[in-house]
Amino acid sequence: MIKKIFFTPGPTELYPVVHEAIAQALKDNVCSINHRSSEFIEIYKSTDNSLRKLMDIPDENHILFLSSATECMDRMVQSCVINNSHHFVNGAFAERFFKTAIELGKNSTATVVEHGEGFDFSSIPDMSNSEMICFTQNETSTGVATELSRIYEIKDKYPEAIVITDIVTSAPFISPDYNKVDAAFFSVQKGFGMPAGLGVLVVNRRCIDRAEELKQKGYSIGSYHNLISLAEYAQKYQNTETPNVLAIYLLGKVCEFLNDYGKEKMREETIAKANMLYSMIDSSSTLRPLVKDKNIRSQTIVIAQTGERQAKIKQKLLNSGYVVGSGYGKYKDSEIRIANFPMHRIEDVRSISEILSSI
Amino acid sequence: MIKKIFFTPGPTELYPVVHEAIAQALKDNVCSINHRSSEFIEIYKSTDNSLRKLMDIPDENHILFLSSATECMDRMVQSCVINNSHHFVNGAFAERFFKTAIELGKNSTATVVEHGEGFDFSSIPDMSNSEMICFTQNETSTGVATELSRIYEIKDKYPEAIVITDIVTSAPFISPDYNKVDAAFFSVQKGFGMPAGLGVLVVNRRCIDRAEELKQKGYSIGSYHNLISLAEYAQKYQNTETPNVLAIYLLGKVCEFLNDYGKEKMREETIAKANMLYSMIDSSSTLRPLVKDKNIRSQTIVIAQTGERQAKIKQKLLNSGYVVGSGYGKYKDSEIRIANFPMHRIEDVRSISEILSSI
Repeated sequence: MIKKIFFTPGPTELYPVVHEAIAQALKDNVCSINHRSSEFIEIYKSTDNSLRKLMDIPDENHILFLSSATECMDRMVQSCVINNSHHFVNGAFAERFFKTAIELGKNSTATVVEHGEGFDFSSIPDMSNSEMICFTQNETSTGVATELSRIYEIKDKYPEAIVITDIVTSAPFISPDYNKVDAAFFSVQKGFGMPAGLGVLVVNRRCIDRAEELKQKGYSIGSYHNLISLAEYAQKYQNTETPNVLAIYLLGKVCEFLNDYGKEKMREETIAKANMLYSMIDSSSTLRPLVKDKNIRSQTIVIAQTGERQAKIKQKLLNSGYVVGSGYGKYKDSEIRIANFPMHRIEDVRSISEILSSI
Repeated sequence: MIKKIFFTPGPTELYPVVHEAIAQALKDNVCSINHRSSEFIEIYKSTDNSLRKLMDIPDENHILFLSSATECMDRMVQSCVINNSHHFVNGAFAERFFKTAIELGKNSTATVVEHGEGFDFSSIPDMSNSEMICFTQNETSTGVATELSRIYEIKDKYPEAIVITDIVTSAPFISPDYNKVDAAFFSVQKGFGMPAGLGVLVVNRRCIDRAEELKQKGYSIGSYHNLISLAEYAQKYQNTETPNVLAIYLLGKVCEFLNDYGKEKMREETIAKANMLYSMIDSSSTLRPLVKDKNIRSQTIVIAQTGERQAKIKQKLLNSGYVVGSGYGKYKDSEIRIANFPMHRIEDVRSISEILSSI
């Protein structure tokens, strides 16, 4: 049987270093050590350091480990919002963030655009009353990337609000300037090529202060995973509960690998691979790019409209071992989503492009 | 270097089958498959079936996958409690459940006993107004086990309340009668000998109905991990978010192994090993059992008071490769906690007993 290589938006292909790191972890009893022990603290500290280096996260920001990106949304609303948040919704994951706030009883609002479209930043609503402004920088369901500069402009305009962005499928290719946003989060089964089960939330002091403010005013900010408890334990390189220790260990190993490899090199390669894929789609007679505006095309999630031939196209790729994603939700059978993460090799991207060109 | 064997209360020694199952998972791309795919659904269904068989969970109960036992406490309070819950607190983990309710803004109450003591069920407070009554059947910080019959009696007396029990360190040795409690939860890094990162919550229809009732009354019951959403997805053998897929897979493999091995045999062996440890402690001139009342001694967490010699005792065990736990919290340096889980072999328990007897 031909070996499968996953170009799915996540879960996706494991980074080769992950296989080695799992073997090492088992040998070193990483899954058996106590989560308050000095051995664990060393692992946590090492991961924290490597991730800061890879993603240029300043020392003053807190890196918090949760269980998924969805949980990051949930806990941020719980800890930082009394009445309302505003959401820039351009797909299913931005919608999930908005829905989270509504389900938590907030009077949240949203700016919504069509499938595959970006936002018109020349005409955005007044957000003076929004306590938190939420972006999905790289929307996995549509392959639309919002330029970071646009997010920074919103923060400039509304300095009182907490500005947060989902970078689930853009990290570590993209890392925002943490002086220009208050928080960002991602999960590890995408660009980090790891097994699912860990969410990473990066917050600044402002987010913690906001949680303190809510608490002092008598609001519940949640229990064991409220921002204050999470940050307090993170400063001791620990978690409030027994965390996914193996995932924290593996994240460190992937970051170390990428730091050694060179993050600039990884980013240049990502762009080169994305260019290859988009060029192929743009010149294809069968495929159409979902995102027409080249300025907002995601470099890490490349989506092509396939029309009725989707199943045949996916099968043709699979015959060579390549597993790509289907479209999201109602576009399930009419689009393919090709992930372009750091572990995806340029040779394979070239092969995929050639197969798709030949259709 | 001598091979370490972890007799810690959790994280603990991995079940040997876990090593093989991780290798198989990597080979079969378990960490890369889509969490909405038929392959994933098959894995989920298989784990659900094997766990039901092992723990005698009726078909009508929902098995929900969360990220930790602490999250199970959090979500149960969020989804099922408007004003108050009552907690039977005999240690740090029962205290955690109580604290969770308080942090979520509830007017909860507690019946508290001293370290190492059980409850006097002949004199319990009136709980007519408690919406949820919470037990920690096997308190990991004290090694006190509450008899299941006592918990069932409380349910009989307060049929309107949701009766829930933490079975974190007793599962799968113990599994309650799910017709006599409404909910139970555990994590997998204890008796299942797995890496940490998965919490399992078993609930009946009553819990879901209660969440529906709160929702209809206009209360927020939480977002993506509220009981209604969790149960809805669980019925499709999926999760609301991308879960810890590897852990769900591994749990299935451990359950399959134990079902083949024989759960009765596993339970008999657990009792035999516990008897060996308690006999040794009872007859020791150096050690004292923390739990004096033999009727409430945990079979899976055996605690001995060591006095000042604790570090030396732990070192002596470590010289033979055995890692045991320290006491919890302020008893850190004056107690040892020895886990007695299904993966712990009787030969090793005998060796530990002999080493401790010789001191």
